[in-house]
Order: sequence, then C-alpha cells, then structure tokens
Amino acid sequence: MERNTVTLFETIVTLLENKKYATLRDILSTMNPVDIAVIFEDIQNEKTAVLFRLLPKELAAEAFVEMDEDTQELLIHGFSDTELKEIIDELYVDDAVDIIEEMPANVVKRILRQADPDVRKQINEILKYPEDSAGSIMTTEFVRLRPKMTVEEAIKRIRRTGIDKETIYTCYVADDHSTLIGIVTIKSLLLADEEETIENLMETNVIAVNTLDDQEKVVQVFNKYNFLAVPVVDKENRLVGIVTVDDAIDVMEEEATEDIQKVAAITPTTDKPYDKLTVWEIFNSRIPWLLILMISATFTGMIINSFESSLATSIVLTAFIPMLMGTGGNSGSQSSVTIIRSLSLREIEFKDIFKVIFKESRVSILCGVVLAVANFAKMLLVDRMLLNNPDVTVMVALVVSLTLVLTVFFAKIVGCTLPMLIEKIGFDPAVVASPFITTILDALSLFIYFEIATSILHI
Amino acid sequence: MERNTVTLFETIVTLLENKKYATLRDILSTMNPVDIAVIFEDIQNEKTAVLFRLLPKELAAEAFVEMDEDTQELLIHGFSDTELKEIIDELYVDDAVDIIEEMPANVVKRILRQADPDVRKQINEILKYPEDSAGSIMTTEFVRLRPKMTVEEAIKRIRRTGIDKETIYTCYVADDHSTLIGIVTIKSLLLADEEETIENLMETNVIAVNTLDDQEKVVQVFNKYNFLAVPVVDKENRLVGIVTVDDAIDVMEEEATEDIQKVAAITPTTDKPYDKLTVWEIFNSRIPWLLILMISATFTGMIINSFESSLATSIVLTAFIPMLMGTGGNSGSQSSVTIIRSLSLREIEFKDIFKVIFKESRVSILCGVVLAVANFAKMLLVDRMLLNNPDVTVMVALVVSLTLVLTVFFAKIVGCTLPMLIEKIGFDPAVVASPFITTILDALSLFIYFEIATSILHI
Repeated sequence: MERNTVTLFETIVTLLENKKYATLRDILSTMNPVDIAVIFEDIQNEKTAVLFRLLPKELAAEAFVEMDEDTQELLIHGFSDTELKEIIDELYVDDAVDIIEEMPANVVKRILRQADPDVRKQINEILKYPEDSAGSIMTTEFVRLRPKMTVEEAIKRIRRTGIDKETIYTCYVADDHSTLIGIVTIKSLLLADEEETIENLMETNVIAVNTLDDQEKVVQVFNKYNFLAVPVVDKENRLVGIVTVDDAIDVMEEEATEDIQKVAAITPTTDKPYDKLTVWEIFNSRIPWLLILMISATFTGMIINSFESSLATSIVLTAFIPMLMGTGGNSGSQSSVTIIRSLSLREIEFKDIFKVIFKESRVSILCGVVLAVANFAKMLLVDRMLLNNPDVTVMVALVVSLTLVLTVFFAKIVGCTLPMLIEKIGFDPAVVASPFITTILDALSLFIYFEIATSILHI
Repeated sequence: MERNTVTLFETIVTLLENKKYATLRDILSTMNPVDIAVIFEDIQNEKTAVLFRLLPKELAAEAFVEMDEDTQELLIHGFSDTELKEIIDELYVDDAVDIIEEMPANVVKRILRQADPDVRKQINEILKYPEDSAGSIMTTEFVRLRPKMTVEEAIKRIRRTGIDKETIYTCYVADDHSTLIGIVTIKSLLLADEEETIENLMETNVIAVNTLDDQEKVVQVFNKYNFLAVPVVDKENRLVGIVTVDDAIDVMEEEATEDIQKVAAITPTTDKPYDKLTVWEIFNSRIPWLLILMISATFTGMIINSFESSLATSIVLTAFIPMLMGTGGNSGSQSSVTIIRSLSLREIEFKDIFKVIFKESRVSILCGVVLAVANFAKMLLVDRMLLNNPDVTVMVALVVSLTLVLTVFFAKIVGCTLPMLIEKIGFDPAVVASPFITTILDALSLFIYFEIATSILHI
C-alpha cells in the first residue's frame, strides 16, 4: 500500500505541474480522504491550495480533517473567507474543535468568525472542557429521539437530520428535561415494527460518562462494553454529547504511546509523530528524567564508597556489580510493568495487594533459585576454569549467588507493591515505573551484595 | 461503577440462595451482558447453571460470550445438548470460534456436533486460518448486496436477514463471482432515494485486507481510516468475511500489552489477565530473558576484570560505574522505545534511518553536554566538598563527565539504529528493545570509561 502511495504521489505532482486539473479531479475523487491528506502533507507548497480547490466539497472537508496541523494552517492562510466558511460548515463539531486546538490565536479567531452562530456556540461549549476530559473529545451532533415517537417517525427524523450527524447508528432518547433515558440502535429500529414506540424499544440500562471524566475512563468503557458510541452527560444527568469509537481509538493509541514512553523514562509532552518533532522538543522530553536518575544514582555511589575498603581487598567482587544490578533491575521492571498494565486494564485493584505480593514472592523464589544455580555453575565453570580466574573462589560464587536470590526477591516485591501504592495515593503508576524503581533496586542490590560479602568473606 | 457491581453481586448471591428466581430474572434482564458475565465469573459454583437458565435466550448468549473460559467450560459441562445447541445458534460465528479456540478437545467436539451443519462449516472455515491472521479474527456473517439492487430492495434485505449479522452498518457489494466491488453504509442507504441503485451509491475505492494478513495489519487499517468494519478477501479477491471494530480494539489492547511486556523483557505467552495466570506461567514468561541477560552480563564482568589493576589503584572510579551504566541504559532505551513505537505506528520506516540517526545524534549531544556539566558540578560540590571525599579530584570529575558525553552519544545511536536494522531483516524490533540494548550499552559504557580513565589519569 505504501508503495502505491508513492507512485501515485509522483503522478499527481507531475499532473499538477502540467495543470491537468480535470484528470487530477478524477483521480482525487476516487481516493480515500486519509490517503488524500497524506498527499497534501507531502506536497505542502504554493500549489497545495490549487489542488485543494479541485476536491468535491464533502471530500475536501473529510481530507482536511485528516491533515497535519502545518498543512491545515497553510491551507487556511490561502482560503478566502467564503472558502473557509464552506469547509467549516462541512466539518463535524468535534473535528472543528480538534483543528482549533492546534491553530495559532489569529487563525482561531478567523475560523470562529466564519462559523455559523450555532456552530460557534457548540465549538465554544466543547472548548471550555478541560484537556483530556470526556467533554473535550465529545461531539454535540447526534440523533436525539423522543420516547413517544414511533419507529416510523424516528426513521423519518433520522432521514431528515442524519446527514449532519457523526453517527446515526446509535440514537439517544431524552425526556423533556434533556435527561438521557435510553438508547436505541438503528439496527433495532430497522428490524422493529413501524408502529412500535421508541419507549418500548429502547435500552434503558444506559452506560454513560460524565463531561469531566478523564478520557481514559471513556476508553475503559469502550474496551469493556464494545460500544460504537458512548453518551456524555453533565452533572445533572443531561445529555450533552457523545464520543464515537473512532475518537476513542485515537485516545487508546495516544495513551498506549504515553504508557510506553513513561516506562522508558520519557516525559510525554506532545502527540506529534516522531518525524514532526524538533530536536529541541525531543531533548526536552528526555533530559528531565536523565538528570533525575543521574542524581539519584549518587546513593549507589555512596554505598560503594562506604564499602571501598572491602572492595579494595577483594577487587574481584567489582566484576559482578553490573550483572547483579542488571538482574535486579530487570526482575523489578518485569513485575512493575506487569502490575502497571494490569492496573490500567482493571484486572487487579488495590484490595488485591496481598494476593499480588504472595504470587510475586512465589514467582521470585522460583526465578531467584534458578538464576542462582545457573550463576553458581557459570562462575565456577566459565569464570574460574575456562577463563582461568583464580580469584573466583567457591565462596565468591556463593556470595554472588546468594545475593541474586535476595535481590530478585526484593526486586519483585518492590516492583509489584510500589505501583499499587502510588496509584492508591492518587498518582499515575506508570510515571514511577521501571527507571525509578531501578534506581531504588540498584542501591538495594549493592547493599545486599556488600553485606553478604563482608559477612561470608570476612573482609 | 466497580462499587455498584460489588453490592449488586452480594444481592444476587443472597437471592440465589433464597431461590428468588423471578426477582433474579428481573434484575438480570436490566443488566448489560458484560456486567452479567462478571457476576457469573465471581460466582462459579454449582448454582451458576441455575442462574444462567434464568436469562432470556439472547441475553444469555451475549453474556456467555463475555465470560472467561473457565466459567464458559463450567457452564457447557452443565448444559444439556439442547441447551448447548440453543446457545450456539444465538452466537455470532466469530464469537463461537473464539470460544472453541480456548476449550479442551472433548468440549470442542461436543460444540461442533450441536452446531447447525451450515454454522459448523463456517466455524471450520475460520478455524483453518493461522493464529493472529485476519482470517482467524473475521466473521463470515455480514450483509451482502448486489450491484443492481435498488435502495428499497437493499433495505428490505437488511430487515429480513439483519438479525443474524454482526453489523448491518456497512454492507458489502459483490458481483456474481463473489468479487468485492464496493461498500455502502446504512447511513447512505437511509439518506438516499429509494429508487437509486446500489451500483450508483456504493463506494468503489474499497480498502480490504487479505485473509492471511497479520492481525496487526488489520489494526493499522482501523487506526488509519476510522472504519467500523474492514472487509477480508482471499487470494482471488473474493469477499470471505469482515472484521468489526470491537474485535480490532481487542487486538489493539493485546498488541499494546505485548509491546509493553517486550520492553520489560517478558516473553508474551498468553492473553490471560494477571489474576488468572498461575505462578508457573508467570515464571515461564520471565525466566528466559533473566537468564539470557544474566549470562550476557559476563561481558561487562570481563571488561572490569581486564581493567582490574587500574581499578585497584584508583578505587574511587568504581563508585561511578552504576551511574554511568544507568545513564547509558536510560538514554539508549529512550531512543529505542521511541523508535520502536514510531515504527509500529508507521511514522517512520527504514529509508528514514539516516534522518533518524542525524536527529538522535543532535539530541544526544544536547543531552550529553547538559548531563556532563551537571555531573561535573555535582561531583566537585557534593562528592568532593560536601561529602568530603578527597579522591574525587577535578581530573576524576573530568573523566566521568567525558565518559557521560560519549556514552549518551553511543547509547542513542545504538538505541535508534538497532531496532530499525532488526526490523529490516524481518524480526520484531520490540523483542530486542531496552533490556538487550542495555546489555550492549553496559559493556560499551564501561569500555569507554576505562579507556578514558587510563589515558587521562595515566593508571
């Protein structure tokens, strides 16, 4: 598919240079809006506006929504007020809001000035909700039905107003006070008798989210219930909008990227793709954690310093520090990442903490013993015999292996409890994930190592 | 919401013990199938079958699909052949396949024996596709239209057959050879003139996936195009099924979990939630990487050994090993995780490798210099003056800071190129992510450290 886009792109550029507008219009009309958007992003020059004017009105709006903000801004600057108004009229309100959120203030002003008073009101309504709230990702365009309507009346209403709605597949039933009282799918409407009333047909056990709920909550509802859209209600339970599944998928992708970034000690700052990020933006998202983790490694340095004299008499011990710290870190992040993911998928919650600790401690003993045995054999067979290092004695191998068992045990316990505690007190467990836990574990494993070494080797 | 489920659960258990079946039926009938499934999973005893028989037939099937495999198996064992047949008749084919894939052989046999010959044929059809292929997650129940039909005829057909279809919102148009020639949404059908033909109304630029495509490809199509369903065609371009967005969301969640696990050096083995995994299963998913990474740390040990004499004369250098290795590892995994995610979201591809290296090298120089300056100041102000360690000289601080610059540079270059190369030769870049790269970087940073130390400090 990628390969096709490239070839087609070259054809379009050539046709555009040769002013073959009729041919271009024919080609673009057969294309999917997403693919058209990619072509516009790749062209991005003074010809972009010419090409855009060739698109049929509806397709133009659909493609416009899919473009990145730079291309959108470039196009808006080229639009006459009439053209801008036409595009805005074609947009769904939530898409208009997404665009406005990325534009500089003067462009936002121009867009709002061109929008219909009614649309402007709806846009401003959505804009007032906090970032990442359900209200901020909802659309206010949905099909609203009355409980006393018949199926025939409802279908007529959908036929009359549906063109402007983002989805007609789930319709929402509200009473005279705008309170959400039920939902009805178009499938059930089509399969029902025409004389049936909506009241009798609707599903009354409605799952809704609140305007101020976090968008993660919205995603969880989609994950759990397989809906195509979720209604959004305000504090008084009045229906104010819906979130459709395509927007929920975008949020899912964004949240998954954020979780992965946090595990890798990157501050999530922006949802721009990598190729659009500047060096400065990447630097800013990475340097804070690198600094914090570097400074916190002072503790490990202090522990080594305090055992400096023991180390000097038995310098062979130094060679196993990286392996012990690495194994501790890996064991801990295995547990913490598993627990963080399970927490975010709601597979476990805080009340399960003792069950989790019990399970992790059994896993850690199994892991620790297997690693210790493997390590003991490896140190004697490889380090002592094969590499001929006389400093690696049976006692040294015993010290390192015992340290492994204890380190893996504590690593897994810290790795599973810390995220649960952090979530309990109201923070995001992903933020404290692997790198931070690793720092704690580095210090802990060194401490265990030197304690065992001094007592067994009497140094 | 969680709290509600708990209270309701206790009520239901009490009612069940007191044999208040009519009340139970009323309660269950108002509930969402997903919430009913949770209740059954929590009860799981000899009463489960009694409770299940209280459910209306359609709701029973919907709830059954949502239950975990243990509860499903328990229920199937309690079913008479007639009951089993009734449930299977209510299921969508792809849900039946999902259940069959998790059941032991004898249960599978029983299910297939009870299924209608036609349904059995469809189930066997889907079962033959490889695991994780588009064919294995599709359903064969969709609305098929003919190009010459009018809108009126099409809507009639949907009304007649729609009840058994998983989605009626996108309908598929095929010619006499079953070749997919277009799609038409129910929205466009409802908004069109009744006399219009499907041929004139349908979208002919159809994006489809192949039966043998990986399920990740299917997810990418949903991510890119915001569809509610994607058609699946065979090698001859014949329409054989569709994948609906709810199944794509499940795959997305599964793949995101897998990616996160791989970053944390866990072998993804099963899609069971954490609370259902046995200690043995968790152990098996974690021990392979722990062993591999422990053994590979032998190299870092060997590097330390070969500089043992230098270390012995300047033991203060040991204290900074954990910090240097940690910073190198963190810098590298920041880059590798960013690149792995961008590769999987198709934001970048192999041909961008030089652009990526150029960008990462500029980021790494910025990060390296800032870290080195901070570290230099910290070593002299904290380690030397505050902690009063005379071994930390200006020259030692210089050695450590210089090492930081070089380590961060190489860490970011290795971190960004390795995943891209690994993907180019056809492997999964997530598998080689952070932990493996960390091992390489540990060795590299130690080597740089000791080389700089020996040449500057003349030890």
